[in-house]
Amino acid sequence: MNSQKFSLEKLAQLVQGQCIGQLDLQFSGMASLESAQPHQLAFLNADKYLNEAQQSQAGALIVTADMQSQIPSQQNFIVVPNPYLAFAILTHFFEKKSVETGIESTAQIHPSAIISDTAYIGHYVVIGANSVVGEGTRIESQVKIDHGVEIGKDCFIDSHVTITGEAKLGDRVRIHANTVVGGEGFGFAPYQGKWHRIAQLGSVRIGNDVRIGSNCSIDRGALDDTILEDGVIIDNLVQIAHNVKVGANTAMAAKCGIAGSTTIGKNCVLAGAVGIVGHINIADNVTITGMSMVTKSISVAGSYSSGTPMLESGSWKKAAIRFKQLADVPLTQLVKRLDHMQSQIESLESTFKLRK
Amino acid sequence: MNSQKFSLEKLAQLVQGQCIGQLDLQFSGMASLESAQPHQLAFLNADKYLNEAQQSQAGALIVTADMQSQIPSQQNFIVVPNPYLAFAILTHFFEKKSVETGIESTAQIHPSAIISDTAYIGHYVVIGANSVVGEGTRIESQVKIDHGVEIGKDCFIDSHVTITGEAKLGDRVRIHANTVVGGEGFGFAPYQGKWHRIAQLGSVRIGNDVRIGSNCSIDRGALDDTILEDGVIIDNLVQIAHNVKVGANTAMAAKCGIAGSTTIGKNCVLAGAVGIVGHINIADNVTITGMSMVTKSISVAGSYSSGTPMLESGSWKKAAIRFKQLADVPLTQLVKRLDHMQSQIESLESTFKLRK
Amino acid sequence: MNSQKFSLEKLAQLVQGQCIGQLDLQFSGMASLESAQPHQLAFLNADKYLNEAQQSQAGALIVTADMQSQIPSQQNFIVVPNPYLAFAILTHFFEKKSVETGIESTAQIHPSAIISDTAYIGHYVVIGANSVVGEGTRIESQVKIDHGVEIGKDCFIDSHVTITGEAKLGDRVRIHANTVVGGEGFGFAPYQGKWHRIAQLGSVRIGNDVRIGSNCSIDRGALDDTILEDGVIIDNLVQIAHNVKVGANTAMAAKCGIAGSTTIGKNCVLAGAVGIVGHINIADNVTITGMSMVTKSISVAGSYSSGTPMLESGSWKKAAIRFKQLADVPLTQLVKRLDHMQSQIESLESTFKLRK
Repeated sequence: MNSQKFSLEKLAQLVQGQCIGQLDLQFSGMASLESAQPHQLAFLNADKYLNEAQQSQAGALIVTADMQSQIPSQQNFIVVPNPYLAFAILTHFFEKKSVETGIESTAQIHPSAIISDTAYIGHYVVIGANSVVGEGTRIESQVKIDHGVEIGKDCFIDSHVTITGEAKLGDRVRIHANTVVGGEGFGFAPYQGKWHRIAQLGSVRIGNDVRIGSNCSIDRGALDDTILEDGVIIDNLVQIAHNVKVGANTAMAAKCGIAGSTTIGKNCVLAGAVGIVGHINIADNVTITGMSMVTKSISVAGSYSSGTPMLESGSWKKAAIRFKQLADVPLTQLVKRLDHMQSQIESLESTFKLRK
Repeated sequence: MNSQKFSLEKLAQLVQGQCIGQLDLQFSGMASLESAQPHQLAFLNADKYLNEAQQSQAGALIVTADMQSQIPSQQNFIVVPNPYLAFAILTHFFEKKSVETGIESTAQIHPSAIISDTAYIGHYVVIGANSVVGEGTRIESQVKIDHGVEIGKDCFIDSHVTITGEAKLGDRVRIHANTVVGGEGFGFAPYQGKWHRIAQLGSVRIGNDVRIGSNCSIDRGALDDTILEDGVIIDNLVQIAHNVKVGANTAMAAKCGIAGSTTIGKNCVLAGAVGIVGHINIADNVTITGMSMVTKSISVAGSYSSGTPMLESGSWKKAAIRFKQLADVPLTQLVKRLDHMQSQIESLESTFKLRK
Repeated sequence: MNSQKFSLEKLAQLVQGQCIGQLDLQFSGMASLESAQPHQLAFLNADKYLNEAQQSQAGALIVTADMQSQIPSQQNFIVVPNPYLAFAILTHFFEKKSVETGIESTAQIHPSAIISDTAYIGHYVVIGANSVVGEGTRIESQVKIDHGVEIGKDCFIDSHVTITGEAKLGDRVRIHANTVVGGEGFGFAPYQGKWHRIAQLGSVRIGNDVRIGSNCSIDRGALDDTILEDGVIIDNLVQIAHNVKVGANTAMAAKCGIAGSTTIGKNCVLAGAVGIVGHINIADNVTITGMSMVTKSISVAGSYSSGTPMLESGSWKKAAIRFKQLADVPLTQLVKRLDHMQSQIESLESTFKLRK
């Protein structure tokens, strides 16, 4: 476990920023503008926080050159073009990292498994036959790595994760606690009123730099594999069904669910609780707003939405009843009728005037 | 493990109720009106169950004074002002409770952790450095308590829970199986087409008497802490993102998701699967109905809703198409046109009459 | 762990199909039409895949008699009336099965628990007092089986599953990783601004041939039991609240949530992320489309839906605002006004003509 202090000068160097003020000032952490103390570093990523910055007790601020001149109350700065990115980079230096290597005595590892000497395997981890754990990878306590699973270098697998279905993970993959990778896909053939289970023979392939949150379910494929390409990031409680493919650098917020055999392009952003039906394609660079229901393929990059906005419950009840009525109210025909009646009236009016 | 019998008189005393009938009748449990047997106690919380009560084979009924006179088939009663509350209280006496204390030999506890003598630590629990477990707290088997976590008195933590991120829990906190508290928040800085992870340096603070269901994800904060105040109750499969604050005694049903940095007031009720976007504020005493999508702050107490009601799928398809058409049908303008045409017609009619 | 090869003839026999072509051709697996290699078997379940079948490098195809004549590029077939069912059956022969029996030395089993000699109990499993594990059942590593739980024959319980609340499971039940069965229901009596916990005294009863995915929460009943009847199949991340009853052979896709005391009939199909409120009844043979919100009982078999379709976000914003306006726009009255004005206009027109 590390827990270090850094000078302002050192911190500026780490993000290739300009250091202004007391170069040897020591910092033990980062905090928000509001709660930062003199031994902590804070950041601004927009002008709207200038007032808050002015009030902040932070020991120094990460800012752009423009911002710096507008905060006379502060003497110490790290000046960079992108304060949010600099903040992201510096968080890693203040993070407490566990640095053990080796295998805890209580881990149960099949003799045929290959574990790198620089990996760490926690207490009560179970690793099955023919599995591989790469260099610098950290497997937290009580993880289950089933037979035939391969995990690359410098990965982090948190407690109670289950990896099964002969899943193959790349390097620098992070999987948070209690997530299941490679569980059986939901495949059943209906016959004579019963569901006949289809044993799932495909696997899961996860690229490099993929991040999966806690309590997610990423199912193995039925025949071919479920695929998460490099750089995909996934929040908590997300469902990825069998044979889904997610393109590189796509992000999914918590509670999304992707049904079987759907393909999602690269660089997409799915906000929270988006649901996507099976067997469709989503193009690259698509953004889908929160809680949207996607039932058709999307072939053009852009932003898509569904759902209805929140209302006070009394108003909502009226609007909801009228949504039902829409089934029997032909809206566009209604507009045509209006147009037609308007011309009838105008015709009456003009005839009338002519005959005055 | 206890499994006791209680006399009708004793049970009445436990809820400060009036005991009517055979005072020494023994009860070994509670059941619903429909399934209760003579050795079981049932309750009514509304007059609409009077018929069912009349048919019930329960050995005794918890009722109000008004109800009692309307159930001639029953001789044995506990009479109280609030039968539902009395029922809630008595369930605790019939619950089988595990009462062991001590640490199972297979638990792995870091030497620097402080475990109360009256706590129970189950098999294969792993507790990290500098953690604290308070008096009377029960940690079920296979739980992971990471370094720096503090758990108060008389808590219950069920199997496969992961507590990490240096979370601090108050007293009488109950966390059900497979929930993750303190997992890493979903924070990434986008830069040059990639996602740059922001190490999460905040923690989670949980007050007293908080209840969290199974398979929930409560993330640690990015810089400041994620906070659940005293008396918050949360059902299963709920997502609480980094830096969310939930006010005292607020209740959330299953499958709710609260995005980052949102603040929810006290005494709110969120029905199932409500989604709330990040960085907004919900006032105290707000009720949100099931599956609602909340995208804006709510500043006034009251009930709020979104979504559309269920329809037979054929009707729904028509209504759904017309929802799309709404984008091009200016509803309020349509009403104005109608009003305008109405006055044109009336003008025509009156002119016409004048000229008869 | 098995991993076998089968001849075409043997495979045809296993599904009572007609074998055409090189009877002794050996197969080591199954694959999709697109990715199959000569040692793999593929299948077609609809004519629309005939082109793909024609291109496939699969060693043989499972087809109907009609299809066979339309794929001249292929010489080897298994001909059956229902290729999808035949595929489902054959997957089981190619599945790698773990076949150990016995109890791993690290499992912690209470002396009063009864474990069949033909069961397998994995590493770090914890089994409580008076529990039962039936013949041929496989309990994967790190599972928690709490006291009083009974598990039938030939079940599969994957890692990190928690079974508590004295749940009773039938035969051939499959529960995937990290699911919680029998957790405490979300029951609280509100009194004087606080939530008073109702200890949950009911249990969970699960029939034969039930399948539950990963990361699900199936709560125990408050007084009576939560019930899943024979043949129910449930995908991942599903919430079943206390006292829900699910009828035989009903299927639920991922992320569904069923609130307390609701009864669902037999042979229903719930698509992904459907939400059903508490205390209602759903008839047999009901289909509910994805993400629907069900707030009322359904008494007639059929298909039901709710929600709104996806739109480009700009159009959606307009439609969403007009959904709000619906609260103040009386749609059906609007149609009536139109009808009325139409007759006024026609009356004016005819009077006008009469007087020409």
